[in-house]
Amino acid sequence: MHERIASLAHIGKTSDGGSRRIALTDDDIAGRNLVISWMKDTGLDVQVDQIGNVFATLKGEVEGSPIMMGSHIDTVGNGGHLDGSYGVIGGLEILAAYKESGKINKHDLCVAIFTNEEGVRFQPDMLGSLVYAGGMSLDDAHNIISTDGKTIYDELTRTGTLGSMVCGSITPYAFIELHIEQGPVLESKNSQIGAVEGVQGISWTGVTFKGQSNHAGTTPMNLRKDAAYAASQLSVAVREITKIIGSGQVGTVGVISPKPNLINVVPGEVYMTVDLRNIDEKKLKKAEDLLKQKIKHICLAEKVNVETEQLVRFKPVNFDKRISNIIANISDEKGLQCTRLNSGAGHDAQMMARICPTSMVFVPSKDGISHNPREYTSKEHLNYGLQILYETINRIDLNLLD
Amino acid sequence: MHERIASLAHIGKTSDGGSRRIALTDDDIAGRNLVISWMKDTGLDVQVDQIGNVFATLKGEVEGSPIMMGSHIDTVGNGGHLDGSYGVIGGLEILAAYKESGKINKHDLCVAIFTNEEGVRFQPDMLGSLVYAGGMSLDDAHNIISTDGKTIYDELTRTGTLGSMVCGSITPYAFIELHIEQGPVLESKNSQIGAVEGVQGISWTGVTFKGQSNHAGTTPMNLRKDAAYAASQLSVAVREITKIIGSGQVGTVGVISPKPNLINVVPGEVYMTVDLRNIDEKKLKKAEDLLKQKIKHICLAEKVNVETEQLVRFKPVNFDKRISNIIANISDEKGLQCTRLNSGAGHDAQMMARICPTSMVFVPSKDGISHNPREYTSKEHLNYGLQILYETINRIDLNLLD
Repeated sequence: MHERIASLAHIGKTSDGGSRRIALTDDDIAGRNLVISWMKDTGLDVQVDQIGNVFATLKGEVEGSPIMMGSHIDTVGNGGHLDGSYGVIGGLEILAAYKESGKINKHDLCVAIFTNEEGVRFQPDMLGSLVYAGGMSLDDAHNIISTDGKTIYDELTRTGTLGSMVCGSITPYAFIELHIEQGPVLESKNSQIGAVEGVQGISWTGVTFKGQSNHAGTTPMNLRKDAAYAASQLSVAVREITKIIGSGQVGTVGVISPKPNLINVVPGEVYMTVDLRNIDEKKLKKAEDLLKQKIKHICLAEKVNVETEQLVRFKPVNFDKRISNIIANISDEKGLQCTRLNSGAGHDAQMMARICPTSMVFVPSKDGISHNPREYTSKEHLNYGLQILYETINRIDLNLLD
Repeated sequence: MHERIASLAHIGKTSDGGSRRIALTDDDIAGRNLVISWMKDTGLDVQVDQIGNVFATLKGEVEGSPIMMGSHIDTVGNGGHLDGSYGVIGGLEILAAYKESGKINKHDLCVAIFTNEEGVRFQPDMLGSLVYAGGMSLDDAHNIISTDGKTIYDELTRTGTLGSMVCGSITPYAFIELHIEQGPVLESKNSQIGAVEGVQGISWTGVTFKGQSNHAGTTPMNLRKDAAYAASQLSVAVREITKIIGSGQVGTVGVISPKPNLINVVPGEVYMTVDLRNIDEKKLKKAEDLLKQKIKHICLAEKVNVETEQLVRFKPVNFDKRISNIIANISDEKGLQCTRLNSGAGHDAQMMARICPTSMVFVPSKDGISHNPREYTSKEHLNYGLQILYETINRIDLNLLD
């Protein structure tokens, strides 16, 4: 597995050692073709669907829906070697292990490469799995235009990636995605494994405070309508909201852009963003309500106006408890420390959860860093994740979900 | 006066009606030459010093130091018609009134145009008056390089503005600058006149918080080192500090620049500025101490690091109470509402205060706006200011300061 991860990372390697294989660029396709060649060398049956998703299947003893693994191999502009690739190559290793050991699988076992998970060139992200799960029509998806002006359809055609398999034509028996955590929770809890119970719902709000730009020296405090003060109060309030809602609620002010942004001018306008996430839809709604109240209070007190815009709103996704229990139990049996957690980042698994029982296996990310060349997980941890995935597939193959 | 203000505003007029006569550019020189032509037409004796300051003098009955008025005619990139020009042209009107009416002045009366008050091309601002008052050597000043790579000496020579009079060779008996307020205080108090008692001290601090950039979804609140949260807390604290210090203390966070400034990333670094001003040096120091304490507390609580840099530090300037009392008394006698206040902006008068009794007469600025084409003061208010200046000169000429 480690050699394959390193080989794939050679394609689109950046000057500082990161990976750049943006969806449906030549480097992404070179990476896909390398992985497909491994799939074929392993003796798997490879199919490509009409949005470019790749499915490599090892036939099982009994006809029926496959147990699917997989993830993506596209990257952000300068990402790490593990995000996505670990789940695809890890799944492939498991099929190879079955094949080599002669172990009999009842269900078909399948590993997928989903198209455009990162959403760098084409919006939205997680596109391949979204279309596969029926969340967007194939026509709409084909007509999406990249940041460089090409449609997905054109790029699928240009790169020879347009398959004939109908999207969604196979409904999996279960879907399990192996992935690095991309956050600091497992490391902070000294856990080797994360049993993922769901994906947080996301609420993004753009907030523009409009006050009055004034001279910083000549304007008494009581005559100010300071948009930056309002924004700062809201930023502090976002932290308070996470405390009020409690454990599991996160809130981030990532963007603060005052105008004119000059040392001696009271800012007349500030654009800022608020990112709220929770695994519990009710709590997320409560956080949104508190945010609205805070904005109202701030505007009244500072005599500023506000415009808000909902930029993104996804409901939380709950994974299949039976699978996360299996993951936790196996970890326990193997003497590994397992933490049940929710994903704060988006994954193909959340789309697949629409059509079949789904969960994810996480391994720790050093310092929680991802989407960065410094993304790192030790080989030991990567191996643990692979072992847990293997055993999880074994057990699910025993019809544990029936 | 109004016609002359309008004529001067024609030179360097911008597309939206503002004024652009940046120091020692051709437009600034054209403006100077126009005003000098008016000075000569009025029969005044015009001298130019070695930093380009212009002094137009009406001889008095008795030998001795002159009562000086004046301001500047250079502007910011797109400023108003009144900032500076009002004080120069207003002073000229008073000399003309003496000349025309045959009224005898004991002291020489003089109106000055100071070079580079705005500090747009050449740093520091208030340069001409600073050099005149002995705050910077002529050599140092001549070697200052503009934003476009020219020295002051070169530009003085190129524009024929380098005079022979030694800077500071005349010590005025008193200096009075007529100016628009550039702030909202007089308007908010329904006052026609401001008797200026001093100029606020200024403390500018650049603050860089360094935390850790993290994924907004995957990083639990308790594991964050959020530089933007720290910056927002400090911004809120600056307002608190102004309340603790009380009336007269102003505090502004004008710049907030998070990195990477992306919606779904916890900012790892934020640069921000804090502008603190007070007329009382002790209070200003206390505000600075409180700022340091707040920064320390914030860093400890959020586990972020900080670098601070003092960008500017000027002590407050106290004007001559006798002159501000005269201004207030005259206003009272004329039935005008006068407010005693301190200037939040810098002025040539604060440099002249180093060498002679000094004060300023303010008139209201509509909505407190200045350094902007929308800068506006009604003709009625401009006339009141001129009348008060005239009467103030009359009284000081009676040796009221002896």
